[in-house]
Amino acid sequence: MILKKDEVLNDLLAYEGLKIIQNQKMFNFSLDTVLLAQFCTIAKDTKKIIDLGTNNAAIPLLISTRTKKPIVGVEIQAEACDIASRNVVMNHLENQIEVVLMDMKDYVKAYPKSSNLVLCNPPFFKLGEKSNLNENESLQIARHEIKVTLNEIVATAKGLLEYHGRFAMVHRPNRLIEIIEAMKANDIEPKRLRLVYPKVGKDSHILLIEGVYKGQPGLKIEPPLYAHNLDGSYSDEVKKMFGEDCNAATEKL
Amino acid sequence: MILKKDEVLNDLLAYEGLKIIQNQKMFNFSLDTVLLAQFCTIAKDTKKIIDLGTNNAAIPLLISTRTKKPIVGVEIQAEACDIASRNVVMNHLENQIEVVLMDMKDYVKAYPKSSNLVLCNPPFFKLGEKSNLNENESLQIARHEIKVTLNEIVATAKGLLEYHGRFAMVHRPNRLIEIIEAMKANDIEPKRLRLVYPKVGKDSHILLIEGVYKGQPGLKIEPPLYAHNLDGSYSDEVKKMFGEDCNAATEKL
Repeated sequence: MILKKDEVLNDLLAYEGLKIIQNQKMFNFSLDTVLLAQFCTIAKDTKKIIDLGTNNAAIPLLISTRTKKPIVGVEIQAEACDIASRNVVMNHLENQIEVVLMDMKDYVKAYPKSSNLVLCNPPFFKLGEKSNLNENESLQIARHEIKVTLNEIVATAKGLLEYHGRFAMVHRPNRLIEIIEAMKANDIEPKRLRLVYPKVGKDSHILLIEGVYKGQPGLKIEPPLYAHNLDGSYSDEVKKMFGEDCNAATEKL
Repeated sequence: MILKKDEVLNDLLAYEGLKIIQNQKMFNFSLDTVLLAQFCTIAKDTKKIIDLGTNNAAIPLLISTRTKKPIVGVEIQAEACDIASRNVVMNHLENQIEVVLMDMKDYVKAYPKSSNLVLCNPPFFKLGEKSNLNENESLQIARHEIKVTLNEIVATAKGLLEYHGRFAMVHRPNRLIEIIEAMKANDIEPKRLRLVYPKVGKDSHILLIEGVYKGQPGLKIEPPLYAHNLDGSYSDEVKKMFGEDCNAATEKL
């Protein structure tokens, strides 16, 4: 295994044997990634899973521990796609995970109605919001709506989903209203919502939402998840997702 | 104090001195009522507070412990309005609380743009949903959308609110999507959401939401509230709202 400049090799701790190459100057998987991979519903009738904006393929790698169904990661950035492809090969998952270098807006045109589970850990920030001049272009694309907006992502999911297929996303609570509007506008009925809180007494900082294409109305709001205990250590539920040594491994989260 | 048939006199426990007449065969205040009265934002610039569907005026009574601003309770049922009026007089609050026997849809026509804080503990169920043949008409009206629908309530709030006035409601999480759609359709931007859970590990059963008329987008999801401890006793936060003896007083909730 030869790493390129700025790349490191990390264990996906709770997932025995899984390793991931990450570029320290690019998007690195975080609590958001792990939460979404755990949250989404994988059913017996799930056929092909599509991860929109897969970056280094962290979500497909994590999902591969839950199912043997085929997974496609779609990524617009060539450098991230290169890392993603090497991550798949390194973990011997080339028979399950396919990485596609493509704009998701083109992918949906090429493969309409081809999936019944679409996932996305999208850029959270609107153009101009929380911009950080120190961010390189790659990070900016991963974090800001430069290449794709919330509405375009949800419209892409609609185009990819078969009747009653699922769409699951992780996002920020301050955008819940827009998310619901975008889902409703694209005939994706929100069915499950889970809120993550940094710790007891704080406002939610992460939301997980899943909808069903042309589903019936009726939302369930699932039990809250605390990321940290009051003493700052990771909560038991998060530890279980990351593995026991997560305090060391996730110190940058 | 002379009680009529089926009426009882209850203490509003955490609220020193407050008492409430309730008819055991009609709507009785519950955790929903107390939560909404605590949740809503009462600001320095709050002028007149309007409680839509006030029933026996539990919400105005509870609100009177937080502010001296004038409160109007609007109620369509004559019998409930009669109890509400006696509750106001019994607690010597006739200078603060006014009870109006009127359909809220008529009230808004008579008093448009007359408030900057509108509250509602509405009927939770759609027509035909969860119907209980043992319910009398009064309970049915309080619990089912017979006299007024969710959309009509939110439209009423819009009509009553001045620019940047607030609308706060308690409801059931399975209707969150509809609530958000109704608020957006009426230019009331959801700003605060709080979810209540029966206990750890269970889905949410109550939601509290507050929006601002013509407000800027940007939602805060506040810390979750557990109604009960794992042993079934009331949580500390709920005890504080109801008073220490709430286990005895609220056994029917």
